[in-house]
Amino acid sequence: MTTPSDSFAATRERSDELAAEVAAHPDRFRVLTGERPTGRLHLGHYFGTIRERVRLQELGVELFVILADYQVITDRDTLGQVRDNVYHAVLDYAASGIDMSRATVFTHSAVPALNQLMLPFLSLITESELHRNPTVKAELAASERALSGLMLTYPVHQAADILFCKGNLVPVGKDQLPHLEVTRVIARRFNERYGRVFPEPRALLTSTPEIPGLDGRKMSKSYGNAISLSMTADETAALIRRTPTDSDRRITFDPDTRPGVSALLTTAALCLGSDEHTLADKLGDGGGSALKKLATDAVNDFFAGHRARREELAADPDFASGIVREGNRRANEIAERTLDEVHSAMGTVY
Amino acid sequence: MTTPSDSFAATRERSDELAAEVAAHPDRFRVLTGERPTGRLHLGHYFGTIRERVRLQELGVELFVILADYQVITDRDTLGQVRDNVYHAVLDYAASGIDMSRATVFTHSAVPALNQLMLPFLSLITESELHRNPTVKAELAASERALSGLMLTYPVHQAADILFCKGNLVPVGKDQLPHLEVTRVIARRFNERYGRVFPEPRALLTSTPEIPGLDGRKMSKSYGNAISLSMTADETAALIRRTPTDSDRRITFDPDTRPGVSALLTTAALCLGSDEHTLADKLGDGGGSALKKLATDAVNDFFAGHRARREELAADPDFASGIVREGNRRANEIAERTLDEVHSAMGTVY
Repeated sequence: MTTPSDSFAATRERSDELAAEVAAHPDRFRVLTGERPTGRLHLGHYFGTIRERVRLQELGVELFVILADYQVITDRDTLGQVRDNVYHAVLDYAASGIDMSRATVFTHSAVPALNQLMLPFLSLITESELHRNPTVKAELAASERALSGLMLTYPVHQAADILFCKGNLVPVGKDQLPHLEVTRVIARRFNERYGRVFPEPRALLTSTPEIPGLDGRKMSKSYGNAISLSMTADETAALIRRTPTDSDRRITFDPDTRPGVSALLTTAALCLGSDEHTLADKLGDGGGSALKKLATDAVNDFFAGHRARREELAADPDFASGIVREGNRRANEIAERTLDEVHSAMGTVY
Repeated sequence: MTTPSDSFAATRERSDELAAEVAAHPDRFRVLTGERPTGRLHLGHYFGTIRERVRLQELGVELFVILADYQVITDRDTLGQVRDNVYHAVLDYAASGIDMSRATVFTHSAVPALNQLMLPFLSLITESELHRNPTVKAELAASERALSGLMLTYPVHQAADILFCKGNLVPVGKDQLPHLEVTRVIARRFNERYGRVFPEPRALLTSTPEIPGLDGRKMSKSYGNAISLSMTADETAALIRRTPTDSDRRITFDPDTRPGVSALLTTAALCLGSDEHTLADKLGDGGGSALKKLATDAVNDFFAGHRARREELAADPDFASGIVREGNRRANEIAERTLDEVHSAMGTVY
């Protein structure tokens, strides 16, 4: 019998093999990744996923980036400033180095043929398999509301998001593995039942450290503890200034007892390509203000180029909307082609 | 507190008011009805729903008829001869008097913008509301398999099927009322949350008697106890000949103890516009063969015109496919318009 950690070790091993294969034959891979456009993108997004996408793109892998607007309402009532959030995300992607002439950046709600895949896919999975998904359980607990039908079926939308473009490579954190497993099961069952249409996408485990918000809690717009990629240097400095640290002048890295100090160390370490303990030793007993100066300078230096590119791109009011329109056009073209194959396989051609 | 039967009496009363309103202002109503194309249409479909559709059409109500191909796989693995079943249904609709120049007959899987409505609609309903639906429970029990995600979310597809064309009148049997209630809840919640886009469709209760199969069991292709509308007079006679009755020559109507005899009486009574007891009295102690002759003649006379029209239409091999293509074109046009309104209301316009 395998235990969850055995199984994770095996996944880790397969992911390492996959990474080698990607490096050797990048042209064989199509990546699907994306974000829920619930607010501005922040440092967590950059170091957590965007940087990895740019790395894969530079290897020669094809990128599909979904701005999953319908997923915003899995755990909240309305979409908020979704359009604004989408356009700001596009600016950040482009400023980060995602090559818009090669990548397809699109919004979930704009691709009906993708969303239609939900229906045949829902027939391939049982209600108890949907409930068994640990990530759905965890997300439900975090949302403190009744489970919506949309949250319950979330892994099935995700399967449609990945499979509509026959994505075969999905960079995931450990907690998203069960979702990807649902996608693999759906692809396999569809192919068995109707003939081969879909690849079984493989998980590329991302090794990004958890990046806390400035107060040590989960980075979240609603906590006001996140440095957005769209902030100016001054706004960044002001936000870091307001971050609570403590009165111990000796800087040490201890996330449990010193969340504010430790979060600043992690933030600075990521931007400087250093590590928290080295930076803490260097600061010695310089106190909170020296730490804050270090973190502010690190973030502002690291993102100076990003912000300059971002500002330049934002000067064209049609840039972001143009990217999304073109991405949606391409996504629809591909989704319609895939749906045609699904119709042929299922016999629903009239 | 209201009991279920109070609530049914109230529904009955509202349905009667609605019927009067429809008769007075038919142009204010758009009906959505349909079938799962799991086999050939039979007498149960004709007397259960098709006749009522034709009646509403003759009043001046606009008809939308969905051939719900994806719903075939809510409780089975594959779609079978779905295309054939769809084309035969179209022939039966046209032969029954559905006016194809006014009605929109379309297939579920051919309308991506309709199916996309599933996603916002799923966000408006909780998982426990989906489970509480008594019709889903009953259908699950009948299907003897694990509950698929597609069966669990069935009332939500149905909401999309009705609301995509802003259907405001749905002819339903008593057992389908809970489904329609889900549609009404979804329409109401969407309108409250995003602004008014959808009508709350109203239930027109159909008063059709339950029509048993020839052996008294539920009419079903798999039991071989159904007279298909596409059968010839000879095939009908042969099927009725094979129907088990009993050796009591006295003909009486008693569905519990004499299922075969009683089913033949019901079949004949429907076609003759008579009732079972009158026919039984007339047959007296004529025995099974007189009963079978009466039923055979009644069905064959009643459907002679239908069959002649059907044969004529079927002689054009492009008739049925042309109807479906045109219906799908119209359904897509309407669904895309509705989806545009949904995008505007939700703010997902890019």
